[in-house]
Amino acid sequence: MVRVRGGCRMSTSYEAEWVARFGEEGRFTGDLPDLPWLRQILLRRTHRRYAERPVAEPLLRLLLGAAFAASSKSDFQQASAIWVKNRNQRERLAALVPDMPWVGSAPVFLVFCGDAHRLERIGRLRDHCQDNGRLEGFFNAAIDAALVMQTFILAAETAGLGCCPISVIRNHADAVAEILRLPEKVFPVAGVCAGYPALPGHISMRLPSQVTVHTDQYDDKHLAQAVDAYDHRRDARYSLPREQQRSPDIFGYASFYGWSEDKARQATRPEGQCFPCHLRARGFTLD
Amino acid sequence: MVRVRGGCRMSTSYEAEWVARFGEEGRFTGDLPDLPWLRQILLRRTHRRYAERPVAEPLLRLLLGAAFAASSKSDFQQASAIWVKNRNQRERLAALVPDMPWVGSAPVFLVFCGDAHRLERIGRLRDHCQDNGRLEGFFNAAIDAALVMQTFILAAETAGLGCCPISVIRNHADAVAEILRLPEKVFPVAGVCAGYPALPGHISMRLPSQVTVHTDQYDDKHLAQAVDAYDHRRDARYSLPREQQRSPDIFGYASFYGWSEDKARQATRPEGQCFPCHLRARGFTLD
Repeated sequence: MVRVRGGCRMSTSYEAEWVARFGEEGRFTGDLPDLPWLRQILLRRTHRRYAERPVAEPLLRLLLGAAFAASSKSDFQQASAIWVKNRNQRERLAALVPDMPWVGSAPVFLVFCGDAHRLERIGRLRDHCQDNGRLEGFFNAAIDAALVMQTFILAAETAGLGCCPISVIRNHADAVAEILRLPEKVFPVAGVCAGYPALPGHISMRLPSQVTVHTDQYDDKHLAQAVDAYDHRRDARYSLPREQQRSPDIFGYASFYGWSEDKARQATRPEGQCFPCHLRARGFTLD
Repeated sequence: MVRVRGGCRMSTSYEAEWVARFGEEGRFTGDLPDLPWLRQILLRRTHRRYAERPVAEPLLRLLLGAAFAASSKSDFQQASAIWVKNRNQRERLAALVPDMPWVGSAPVFLVFCGDAHRLERIGRLRDHCQDNGRLEGFFNAAIDAALVMQTFILAAETAGLGCCPISVIRNHADAVAEILRLPEKVFPVAGVCAGYPALPGHISMRLPSQVTVHTDQYDDKHLAQAVDAYDHRRDARYSLPREQQRSPDIFGYASFYGWSEDKARQATRPEGQCFPCHLRARGFTLD
Protein backbone atom coordinates (compact mmCIF):
# COMPACT_ATOMS: atom_id res chain seq x y z
CA MET A 1 0.00 0.00 0.00
CA VAL A 2 1.54 3.24 -1.13
CA ARG A 3 -0.18 6.55 -0.69
CA VAL A 4 0.73 10.17 -0.50
CA ARG A 5 0.11 12.19 2.63
CA GLY A 6 1.45 15.63 3.35
CA GLY A 7 3.80 15.43 0.40
CA CYS A 8 5.57 12.38 1.86
CA ARG A 9 5.11 9.04 0.21
CA MET A 10 4.05 6.57 2.88
CA SER A 11 4.07 2.84 2.54
CA THR A 12 3.69 -0.25 4.65
CA SER A 13 5.22 -2.55 2.10
CA TYR A 14 8.47 -3.72 3.71
CA GLU A 15 7.03 -7.19 4.33
CA ALA A 16 8.70 -8.90 1.37
CA GLU A 17 12.12 -7.55 2.32
CA TRP A 18 11.58 -8.35 6.00
CA VAL A 19 10.63 -11.92 5.17
CA ALA A 20 13.69 -12.20 2.94
CA ARG A 21 15.94 -11.07 5.79
CA PHE A 22 14.28 -12.71 8.78
CA GLY A 23 12.21 -15.53 7.32
CA GLU A 24 9.11 -14.30 9.12
CA GLU A 25 6.65 -11.45 8.82
CA GLY A 26 7.39 -8.06 10.34
CA ARG A 27 3.71 -7.34 11.02
CA PHE A 28 4.25 -3.60 10.84
CA THR A 29 1.30 -1.47 11.80
CA GLY A 30 1.18 2.22 11.01
CA ASP A 31 2.71 4.23 8.22
CA LEU A 32 6.31 3.83 7.23
CA PRO A 33 8.17 6.15 4.86
CA ASP A 34 8.95 4.66 1.47
CA LEU A 35 12.76 4.44 1.46
CA PRO A 36 14.22 2.29 -1.31
CA TRP A 37 17.62 2.34 0.40
CA LEU A 38 16.18 0.52 3.42
CA ARG A 39 14.83 -2.14 1.06
CA GLN A 40 18.29 -2.43 -0.45
CA ILE A 41 19.81 -2.93 3.01
CA LEU A 42 17.26 -5.54 4.04
CA LEU A 43 18.01 -7.38 0.79
CA ARG A 44 21.78 -6.95 0.87
CA ARG A 45 23.95 -10.00 0.34
CA THR A 46 27.58 -11.04 0.36
CA HIS A 47 29.25 -11.51 -3.01
CA ARG A 48 32.33 -13.62 -3.61
CA ARG A 49 32.18 -14.01 -7.40
CA TYR A 50 32.77 -10.95 -9.54
CA ALA A 51 32.31 -9.98 -13.16
CA GLU A 52 35.35 -9.11 -15.27
CA ARG A 53 34.21 -5.48 -15.34
CA PRO A 54 36.80 -3.38 -13.52
CA VAL A 55 35.90 -0.89 -10.81
CA ALA A 56 36.87 2.58 -11.98
CA GLU A 57 39.46 4.24 -9.75
CA PRO A 58 37.53 7.52 -9.36
CA LEU A 59 34.52 5.54 -8.14
CA LEU A 60 36.60 3.65 -5.61
CA ARG A 61 38.16 6.87 -4.36
CA LEU A 62 34.69 8.36 -3.98
CA LEU A 63 33.45 5.31 -2.06
CA LEU A 64 36.45 5.42 0.25
CA GLY A 65 35.86 9.12 0.83
CA ALA A 66 32.26 8.41 1.77
CA ALA A 67 33.44 5.58 4.03
CA PHE A 68 35.58 7.92 6.11
CA ALA A 69 32.50 10.06 6.74
CA ALA A 70 31.60 7.38 9.31
CA SER A 71 31.39 8.29 12.97
CA SER A 72 34.67 8.31 14.89
CA LYS A 73 35.22 8.08 18.65
CA SER A 74 36.15 11.56 19.94
CA ASP A 75 36.94 12.60 16.35
CA PHE A 76 40.27 10.80 16.81
CA GLN A 77 39.88 9.26 13.30
CA GLN A 78 41.81 6.09 14.05
CA ALA A 79 41.07 4.11 10.89
CA SER A 80 43.25 3.49 7.86
CA ALA A 81 42.53 1.60 4.65
CA ILE A 82 45.12 -0.10 2.46
CA TRP A 83 44.14 -0.49 -1.18
CA VAL A 84 46.16 -3.45 -2.44
CA LYS A 85 46.74 -2.90 -6.16
CA ASN A 86 50.17 -4.46 -6.56
CA ARG A 87 49.76 -7.93 -8.05
CA ASN A 88 52.60 -9.48 -6.07
CA GLN A 89 51.24 -8.28 -2.75
CA ARG A 90 47.74 -9.46 -3.68
CA GLU A 91 49.11 -12.91 -4.43
CA ARG A 92 51.00 -13.06 -1.17
CA LEU A 93 47.84 -12.11 0.74
CA ALA A 94 45.76 -14.59 -1.26
CA ALA A 95 48.25 -17.34 -0.51
CA LEU A 96 47.52 -16.91 3.19
CA VAL A 97 43.91 -18.02 2.68
CA PRO A 98 43.93 -20.56 -0.16
CA ASP A 99 40.31 -21.59 0.51
CA MET A 100 39.19 -18.04 -0.35
CA PRO A 101 40.46 -17.55 -3.92
CA TRP A 102 38.38 -14.37 -4.25
CA VAL A 103 41.02 -12.59 -2.13
CA GLY A 104 43.33 -12.90 -5.12
CA SER A 105 40.78 -12.63 -7.90
CA ALA A 106 38.39 -9.86 -6.79
CA PRO A 107 38.73 -6.66 -8.85
CA VAL A 108 39.38 -4.72 -5.64
CA PHE A 109 40.93 -5.76 -2.35
CA LEU A 110 41.15 -3.43 0.61
CA VAL A 111 42.38 -3.96 4.16
CA PHE A 112 40.71 -1.88 6.86
CA CYS A 113 43.00 -1.29 9.81
CA GLY A 114 42.64 0.01 13.30
CA ASP A 115 45.26 2.74 13.52
CA ALA A 116 46.35 3.59 17.06
CA HIS A 117 49.71 4.72 15.69
CA ARG A 118 48.61 7.96 14.04
CA LEU A 119 47.23 9.54 17.20
CA GLU A 120 50.47 8.75 19.03
CA ARG A 121 52.49 10.30 16.22
CA ILE A 122 50.32 13.40 16.28
CA GLY A 123 50.96 13.58 20.03
CA ARG A 124 54.70 13.56 19.38
CA LEU A 125 54.34 16.17 16.62
CA ARG A 126 52.51 18.45 19.06
CA ASP A 127 54.80 17.64 21.97
CA HIS A 128 52.03 16.07 24.06
CA CYS A 129 53.18 12.47 24.12
CA GLN A 130 50.81 9.67 25.05
CA ASP A 131 50.83 5.91 24.84
CA ASN A 132 47.84 4.67 22.88
CA GLY A 133 48.50 0.97 23.36
CA ARG A 134 46.16 0.15 26.21
CA LEU A 135 42.89 -1.71 25.69
CA GLU A 136 41.07 1.58 25.15
CA GLY A 137 43.40 2.65 22.34
CA PHE A 138 43.11 -0.74 20.70
CA PHE A 139 39.33 -0.80 21.12
CA ASN A 140 38.71 2.71 19.78
CA ALA A 141 40.90 2.12 16.74
CA ALA A 142 39.23 -1.24 16.04
CA ILE A 143 35.75 0.27 16.28
CA ASP A 144 36.67 3.25 14.11
CA ALA A 145 37.93 0.85 11.44
CA ALA A 146 34.74 -1.21 11.63
CA LEU A 147 32.54 1.87 11.24
CA VAL A 148 34.52 2.97 8.17
CA MET A 149 34.47 -0.54 6.71
CA GLN A 150 30.71 -0.95 7.09
CA THR A 151 30.12 2.48 5.56
CA PHE A 152 32.37 1.50 2.65
CA ILE A 153 30.45 -1.74 2.11
CA LEU A 154 27.06 -0.01 2.12
CA ALA A 155 28.32 2.75 -0.18
CA ALA A 156 29.80 0.18 -2.54
CA GLU A 157 26.54 -1.77 -2.62
CA THR A 158 24.67 1.45 -3.37
CA ALA A 159 26.95 1.87 -6.40
CA GLY A 160 26.06 -1.64 -7.60
CA LEU A 161 29.15 -3.41 -6.27
CA GLY A 162 29.15 -6.54 -4.19
CA CYS A 163 31.49 -7.09 -1.23
CA CYS A 164 32.84 -9.82 0.97
CA PRO A 165 34.61 -9.03 4.26
CA ILE A 166 37.63 -11.21 4.99
CA SER A 167 38.23 -11.20 8.73
CA VAL A 168 40.29 -14.38 8.58
CA ILE A 169 43.31 -12.29 7.60
CA ARG A 170 43.64 -11.55 11.33
CA ASN A 171 44.69 -15.18 11.72
CA HIS A 172 47.74 -14.23 9.67
CA ALA A 173 48.33 -10.82 11.18
CA ASP A 174 52.13 -11.07 11.25
CA ALA A 175 52.31 -11.82 7.54
CA VAL A 176 49.71 -9.17 6.68
CA ALA A 177 51.61 -6.55 8.67
CA GLU A 178 54.81 -7.44 6.86
CA ILE A 179 53.23 -7.45 3.38
CA LEU A 180 51.48 -4.11 3.94
CA ARG A 181 54.35 -2.64 6.00
CA LEU A 182 52.04 -1.74 8.85
CA PRO A 183 53.82 0.16 11.61
CA GLU A 184 53.39 -0.78 15.26
CA LYS A 185 49.86 -0.24 16.59
CA VAL A 186 48.27 -0.52 13.15
CA PHE A 187 46.43 -3.84 12.83
CA PRO A 188 44.07 -5.40 10.30
CA VAL A 189 40.41 -5.56 11.31
CA ALA A 190 39.29 -7.17 8.05
CA GLY A 191 39.92 -7.24 4.34
CA VAL A 192 37.13 -6.48 1.88
CA CYS A 193 36.82 -7.95 -1.62
CA ALA A 194 34.73 -5.83 -3.98
CA GLY A 195 33.59 -5.94 -7.58
CA TYR A 196 30.52 -6.08 -9.76
CA PRO A 197 28.69 -9.28 -8.85
CA ALA A 198 28.79 -12.17 -11.29
CA LEU A 199 26.13 -14.17 -9.44
CA PRO A 200 22.99 -13.18 -7.54
CA GLY A 201 24.42 -14.22 -4.16
CA HIS A 202 22.07 -15.08 -1.35
CA ILE A 203 20.60 -13.25 1.63
CA SER A 204 21.92 -14.39 4.98
CA MET A 205 18.83 -14.87 7.12
CA ARG A 206 19.19 -13.11 10.46
CA LEU A 207 18.18 -14.04 14.00
CA PRO A 208 14.82 -12.50 14.87
CA SER A 209 14.66 -9.12 16.60
CA GLN A 210 13.21 -10.96 19.58
CA VAL A 211 16.74 -12.28 20.17
CA THR A 212 18.87 -9.31 19.13
CA VAL A 213 16.80 -6.25 20.13
CA HIS A 214 15.95 -5.94 23.80
CA THR A 215 13.67 -3.38 25.44
CA ASP A 216 15.06 -1.74 28.59
CA GLN A 217 16.81 -4.88 29.76
CA TYR A 218 18.74 -7.69 28.18
CA ASP A 219 16.40 -10.66 28.09
CA ASP A 220 17.29 -14.03 26.58
CA LYS A 221 14.90 -16.27 28.44
CA HIS A 222 13.22 -17.34 25.18
CA LEU A 223 16.51 -17.86 23.34
CA ALA A 224 16.22 -21.66 23.05
CA GLN A 225 12.80 -21.60 21.40
CA ALA A 226 13.65 -18.60 19.21
CA VAL A 227 16.83 -20.26 17.94
CA ASP A 228 15.02 -23.53 17.28
CA ALA A 229 12.41 -21.72 15.20
CA TYR A 230 15.11 -19.73 13.40
CA ASP A 231 17.07 -22.89 12.59
CA HIS A 232 13.97 -24.36 10.99
CA ARG A 233 13.15 -21.21 9.01
CA ARG A 234 16.70 -21.17 7.63
CA ASP A 235 16.59 -24.87 6.90
CA ALA A 236 13.29 -24.51 5.02
CA ARG A 237 14.94 -21.96 2.74
CA TYR A 238 18.34 -23.54 2.37
CA SER A 239 19.04 -26.88 3.95
CA LEU A 240 22.70 -27.56 4.64
CA PRO A 241 23.55 -30.81 2.83
CA ARG A 242 24.87 -33.71 4.88
CA GLU A 243 28.35 -33.34 3.38
CA GLN A 244 28.55 -29.79 4.73
CA GLN A 245 28.13 -30.89 8.34
CA ARG A 246 31.17 -29.62 10.18
CA SER A 247 33.73 -32.06 11.63
CA PRO A 248 31.60 -35.22 11.58
CA ASP A 249 34.71 -37.13 12.75
CA ILE A 250 34.32 -35.34 16.08
CA PHE A 251 30.59 -34.64 16.30
CA GLY A 252 29.04 -37.32 14.09
CA TYR A 253 26.15 -36.56 11.77
CA ALA A 254 23.11 -34.69 13.07
CA SER A 255 19.71 -35.72 11.79
CA PHE A 256 18.71 -32.04 11.78
CA TYR A 257 21.63 -29.71 11.10
CA GLY A 258 20.66 -26.08 11.60
CA TRP A 259 22.51 -22.78 11.98
CA SER A 260 22.96 -23.18 15.72
CA GLU A 261 24.41 -26.68 15.44
CA ASP A 262 26.78 -25.44 12.74
CA LYS A 263 27.89 -22.35 14.70
CA ALA A 264 28.22 -24.26 17.98
CA ARG A 265 30.53 -26.74 16.24
CA GLN A 266 32.48 -23.95 14.54
CA ALA A 267 32.99 -22.07 17.81
CA THR A 268 34.62 -25.06 19.50
CA ARG A 269 37.62 -24.41 17.25
CA PRO A 270 38.72 -20.97 18.31
CA GLU A 271 40.39 -18.78 15.75
CA GLY A 272 42.70 -15.84 16.21
CA GLN A 273 44.90 -17.41 18.85
CA CYS A 274 47.96 -15.64 17.44
CA PHE A 275 46.24 -12.25 17.31
CA PRO A 276 46.88 -11.23 20.96
CA CYS A 277 50.56 -12.21 20.58
CA HIS A 278 50.74 -10.21 17.39
CA LEU A 279 49.28 -7.15 19.10
CA ARG A 280 51.52 -7.45 22.16
CA ALA A 281 54.60 -7.82 19.95
CA ARG A 282 53.63 -4.62 18.18
CA GLY A 283 53.25 -2.14 20.97
CA PHE A 284 49.90 -2.93 22.55
CA THR A 285 49.80 -3.73 26.24
CA LEU A 286 46.01 -4.20 26.21
CA ASP A 287 45.85 -3.40 29.90
CA MET B 1 27.90 18.07 -15.36
CA VAL B 2 25.12 15.51 -15.63
CA ARG B 3 24.47 13.48 -18.72
CA VAL B 4 22.85 10.25 -19.68
CA ARG B 5 24.86 7.44 -21.20
CA GLY B 6 23.68 3.90 -21.73
CA GLY B 7 20.62 4.51 -19.60
CA CYS B 8 22.76 5.31 -16.56
CA ARG B 9 22.89 8.86 -15.32
CA MET B 10 26.52 9.86 -15.04
CA SER B 11 27.85 12.84 -13.22
CA THR B 12 31.11 14.28 -12.02
CA SER B 13 29.52 16.64 -9.57
CA TYR B 14 30.60 15.36 -6.14
CA GLU B 15 32.98 18.28 -5.71
CA ALA B 16 30.73 20.33 -3.45
CA GLU B 17 30.15 17.38 -1.11
CA TRP B 18 33.82 16.42 -1.18
CA VAL B 19 34.85 19.93 -0.25
CA ALA B 20 32.27 19.95 2.55
CA ARG B 21 33.72 16.73 3.97
CA PHE B 22 37.44 17.21 3.33
CA GLY B 23 37.86 20.95 2.91
CA GLU B 24 39.66 20.46 -0.39
CA GLU B 25 38.79 19.50 -3.93
CA GLY B 26 38.50 15.87 -4.96
CA ARG B 27 39.66 16.55 -8.51
CA PHE B 28 37.80 13.57 -9.88
CA THR B 29 38.43 12.73 -13.47
CA GLY B 30 36.20 10.38 -15.39
CA ASP B 31 32.55 9.57 -15.06
CA LEU B 32 30.96 8.81 -11.73
CA PRO B 33 27.47 7.41 -11.26
CA ASP B 34 24.97 9.88 -9.86
CA LEU B 35 24.11 8.41 -6.44
CA PRO B 36 22.27 10.79 -4.12
CA TRP B 37 22.90 8.48 -1.18
CA LEU B 38 26.66 8.98 -1.54
CA ARG B 39 26.09 12.73 -1.42
CA GLN B 40 24.04 12.22 1.73
CA ILE B 41 26.89 10.26 3.33
CA LEU B 42 29.51 12.82 2.39
CA LEU B 43 27.29 15.50 3.95
CA ARG B 44 26.26 13.53 7.04
CA ARG B 45 26.58 15.19 10.42
CA THR B 46 26.14 14.40 14.06
CA HIS B 47 22.99 15.71 15.74
CA ARG B 48 22.61 16.28 19.47
CA ARG B 49 19.51 18.51 19.50
CA TYR B 50 16.22 17.00 18.50
CA ALA B 51 12.76 18.23 17.61
CA GLU B 52 9.81 17.30 19.82
CA ARG B 53 8.47 15.06 17.03
CA PRO B 54 8.54 11.49 18.28
CA VAL B 55 10.05 8.64 16.29
CA ALA B 56 7.31 6.16 15.42
CA GLU B 57 7.93 2.72 16.87
CA PRO B 58 7.34 0.86 13.58
CA LEU B 59 9.96 3.03 11.92
CA LEU B 60 12.47 2.35 14.69
CA ARG B 61 11.79 -1.39 14.46
CA LEU B 62 12.34 -1.22 10.71
CA LEU B 63 15.62 0.68 11.12
CA LEU B 64 16.85 -1.81 13.70
CA GLY B 65 15.91 -4.67 11.38
CA ALA B 66 17.92 -3.05 8.60
CA ALA B 67 20.81 -2.51 11.03
CA PHE B 68 21.10 -6.22 11.73
CA ALA B 69 21.49 -6.86 8.00
CA ALA B 70 25.08 -5.69 8.56
CA SER B 71 27.94 -8.08 7.95
CA SER B 72 28.81 -10.44 10.80
CA LYS B 73 32.04 -12.36 11.41
CA SER B 74 31.49 -16.03 10.52
CA ASP B 75 27.71 -15.40 10.66
CA PHE B 76 28.05 -15.67 14.46
CA GLN B 77 25.75 -12.62 14.85
CA GLN B 78 27.29 -11.38 18.09
CA ALA B 79 25.55 -8.01 18.41
CA SER B 80 22.64 -6.99 20.63
CA ALA B 81 20.83 -3.67 20.89
CA ILE B 82 19.01 -2.42 23.97
CA TRP B 83 16.25 0.10 23.31
CA VAL B 84 15.93 2.09 26.51
CA LYS B 85 12.32 3.26 26.72
CA ASN B 86 11.79 3.18 30.48
CA ARG B 87 12.06 6.72 31.83
CA ASN B 88 13.75 5.73 35.06
CA GLN B 89 16.47 3.77 33.29
CA ARG B 90 17.03 6.61 30.82
CA GLU B 91 17.49 9.00 33.70
CA ARG B 92 19.94 6.73 35.45
CA LEU B 93 21.97 6.41 32.24
CA ALA B 94 21.80 10.17 31.62
CA ALA B 95 23.00 10.82 35.17
CA LEU B 96 26.23 8.99 34.34
CA VAL B 97 27.13 11.62 31.71
CA PRO B 98 25.75 14.93 32.99
CA ASP B 99 27.64 16.93 30.35
CA MET B 100 25.67 15.13 27.62
CA PRO B 101 22.04 15.96 28.48
CA TRP B 102 20.90 14.59 25.09
CA VAL B 103 21.35 11.09 26.52
CA GLY B 104 18.30 11.79 28.67
CA SER B 105 16.39 14.05 26.31
CA ALA B 106 16.77 12.42 22.87
CA PRO B 107 13.53 10.87 21.57
CA VAL B 108 15.34 7.53 21.21
CA PHE B 109 18.26 6.05 23.08
CA LEU B 110 19.80 2.73 22.14
CA VAL B 111 22.80 0.88 23.49
CA PHE B 112 24.68 -1.32 21.02
CA CYS B 113 26.42 -4.20 22.74
CA GLY B 114 29.00 -6.75 21.81
CA ASP B 115 27.38 -10.05 22.75
CA ALA B 116 29.84 -12.90 23.28
CA HIS B 117 27.35 -14.52 25.66
CA ARG B 118 24.80 -15.71 23.10
CA LEU B 119 27.23 -17.87 21.12
CA GLU B 120 28.35 -19.54 24.35
CA ARG B 121 24.75 -20.20 25.33
CA ILE B 122 24.02 -21.66 21.92
CA GLY B 123 27.05 -23.91 22.42
CA ARG B 124 25.56 -25.18 25.68
CA LEU B 125 22.15 -25.65 24.06
CA ARG B 126 23.75 -27.80 21.36
CA ASP B 127 26.08 -29.59 23.76
CA HIS B 128 29.25 -28.24 22.15
CA CYS B 129 30.56 -26.03 24.91
CA GLN B 130 33.13 -23.35 24.23
CA ASP B 131 34.54 -20.40 26.09
CA ASN B 132 34.09 -17.21 24.08
CA GLY B 133 35.92 -14.92 26.49
CA ARG B 134 39.34 -14.69 24.88
CA LEU B 135 40.47 -11.64 22.94
CA GLU B 136 39.05 -13.10 19.74
CA GLY B 137 35.57 -13.52 21.22
CA PHE B 138 35.65 -10.00 22.61
CA PHE B 139 36.98 -8.56 19.35
CA ASN B 140 34.49 -10.31 17.09
CA ALA B 141 31.55 -9.30 19.27
CA ALA B 142 32.77 -5.69 19.46
CA ILE B 143 33.19 -5.47 15.68
CA ASP B 144 29.80 -7.06 15.02
CA ALA B 145 28.18 -4.46 17.29
CA ALA B 146 30.01 -1.62 15.52
CA LEU B 147 28.90 -2.86 12.09
CA VAL B 148 25.28 -3.02 13.26
CA MET B 149 25.50 0.40 14.94
CA GLN B 150 26.93 2.12 11.87
CA THR B 151 24.28 0.52 9.66
CA PHE B 152 21.61 1.73 12.09
CA ILE B 153 23.00 5.28 12.01
CA LEU B 154 23.09 5.38 8.19
CA ALA B 155 19.60 3.88 7.94
CA ALA B 156 18.27 6.38 10.48
CA GLU B 157 19.84 9.27 8.60
CA THR B 158 18.27 7.99 5.38
CA ALA B 159 14.89 8.20 7.15
CA GLY B 160 15.57 11.83 8.08
CA LEU B 161 16.71 11.20 11.66
CA GLY B 162 19.88 12.55 13.22
CA CYS B 163 22.11 10.52 15.53
CA CYS B 164 24.86 10.94 18.04
CA PRO B 165 26.96 7.98 19.21
CA ILE B 166 27.80 7.99 22.92
CA SER B 167 30.89 5.89 23.45
CA VAL B 168 31.62 7.50 26.81
CA ILE B 169 29.14 5.11 28.42
CA ARG B 170 31.98 2.58 28.36
CA ASN B 171 33.64 4.68 31.05
CA HIS B 172 30.68 3.68 33.23
CA ALA B 173 30.40 0.10 32.06
CA ASP B 174 29.63 -1.37 35.51
CA ALA B 175 26.68 0.95 36.00
CA VAL B 176 25.44 0.48 32.43
CA ALA B 177 25.57 -3.31 32.82
CA GLU B 178 23.58 -3.11 36.05
CA ILE B 179 20.96 -0.72 34.65
CA LEU B 180 20.45 -2.79 31.48
CA ARG B 181 20.92 -6.14 33.27
CA LEU B 182 23.59 -7.24 30.83
CA PRO B 183 24.76 -10.80 31.46
CA GLU B 184 28.43 -11.67 31.58
CA LYS B 185 30.21 -11.26 28.25
CA VAL B 186 27.73 -8.67 26.98
CA PHE B 187 29.31 -5.21 26.99
CA PRO B 188 28.37 -1.77 25.69
CA VAL B 189 30.20 -0.60 22.58
CA ALA B 190 28.33 2.71 22.39
CA GLY B 191 24.96 4.30 22.96
CA VAL B 192 23.17 6.12 20.16
CA CYS B 193 20.84 9.10 20.58
CA ALA B 194 18.39 9.53 17.72
CA GLY B 195 15.58 11.87 16.76
CA TYR B 196 14.48 14.36 14.13
CA PRO B 197 17.11 17.14 14.13
CA ALA B 198 16.18 20.49 15.64
CA LEU B 199 19.28 22.23 14.29
CA PRO B 200 21.29 21.88 11.09
CA GLY B 201 24.33 20.40 12.86
CA HIS B 202 27.74 20.67 11.24
CA ILE B 203 29.89 18.46 9.08
CA SER B 204 32.97 17.10 10.81
CA MET B 205 35.80 17.73 8.36
CA ARG B 206 37.87 14.60 7.83
CA LEU B 207 41.59 14.00 7.41
CA PRO B 208 42.52 13.83 3.71
CA SER B 209 42.62 10.47 1.93
CA GLN B 210 46.36 11.03 1.58
CA VAL B 211 46.56 10.24 5.31
CA THR B 212 43.87 7.58 5.72
CA VAL B 213 43.94 5.65 2.42
CA HIS B 214 47.22 3.97 1.53
CA THR B 215 48.12 2.20 -1.70
CA ASP B 216 49.83 -1.18 -1.30
CA GLN B 217 51.75 -0.12 1.79
CA TYR B 218 51.11 1.97 4.84
CA ASP B 219 52.86 5.27 4.27
CA ASP B 220 52.77 8.19 6.68
CA LYS B 221 55.92 9.99 5.71
CA HIS B 222 53.96 13.11 4.76
CA LEU B 223 51.78 13.04 7.89
CA ALA B 224 53.21 16.16 9.49
CA GLN B 225 52.59 18.40 6.48
CA ALA B 226 49.19 16.83 5.73
CA VAL B 227 48.02 17.35 9.31
CA ASP B 228 49.26 20.95 9.34
CA ALA B 229 47.33 21.70 6.17
CA TYR B 230 44.26 19.92 7.53
CA ASP B 231 44.42 21.89 10.78
CA HIS B 232 44.41 25.11 8.80
CA ARG B 233 41.54 24.03 6.53
CA ARG B 234 39.45 23.17 9.60
CA ASP B 235 40.42 26.38 11.31
CA ALA B 236 39.44 28.42 8.25
CA ARG B 237 35.95 26.92 8.42
CA TYR B 238 35.49 26.86 12.17
CA SER B 239 38.10 28.31 14.43
CA LEU B 240 38.10 26.90 17.95
CA PRO B 241 37.71 29.89 20.28
CA ARG B 242 40.38 30.53 22.88
CA GLU B 243 38.05 29.50 25.72
CA GLN B 244 37.70 26.05 24.14
CA GLN B 245 41.41 25.30 24.33
CA ARG B 246 41.74 22.16 26.38
CA SER B 247 43.41 22.22 29.81
CA PRO B 248 45.23 25.55 29.51
CA ASP B 249 46.30 25.09 33.15
CA ILE B 250 48.53 22.26 31.94
CA PHE B 251 49.32 23.20 28.35
CA GLY B 252 48.93 26.97 28.31
CA TYR B 253 47.27 28.77 25.41
CA ALA B 254 48.35 28.01 21.86
CA SER B 255 48.52 30.88 19.40
CA PHE B 256 47.20 28.53 16.71
CA TYR B 257 44.89 25.85 18.12
CA GLY B 258 44.01 23.25 15.49
CA TRP B 259 42.51 19.78 15.47
CA SER B 260 45.84 18.05 16.07
CA GLU B 261 46.71 20.23 19.07
CA ASP B 262 43.24 19.59 20.50
CA LYS B 263 43.38 15.81 19.96
CA ALA B 264 46.96 15.53 21.19
CA ARG B 265 45.93 17.28 24.41
CA GLN B 266 42.80 15.15 24.73
CA ALA B 267 44.72 11.90 24.25
CA THR B 268 47.06 12.63 27.16
CA ARG B 269 44.10 11.96 29.44
CA PRO B 270 43.27 8.37 28.71
CA GLU B 271 39.70 7.26 29.09
CA GLY B 272 38.28 3.84 29.66
CA GLN B 273 40.73 2.80 32.35
CA CYS B 274 37.99 0.84 34.14
CA PHE B 275 36.85 -0.95 30.99
CA PRO B 276 39.44 -3.79 31.06
CA CYS B 277 38.64 -4.42 34.73
CA HIS B 278 34.95 -4.44 33.90
CA LEU B 279 35.49 -6.98 31.14
CA ARG B 280 37.72 -9.21 33.26
CA ALA B 281 35.21 -9.18 36.10
CA ARG B 282 32.54 -10.31 33.67
CA GLY B 283 34.00 -13.41 32.14
CA PHE B 284 36.53 -12.15 29.62
CA THR B 285 40.11 -13.32 29.95
CA LEU B 286 41.22 -11.33 26.87
CA ASP B 287 44.13 -13.70 26.38
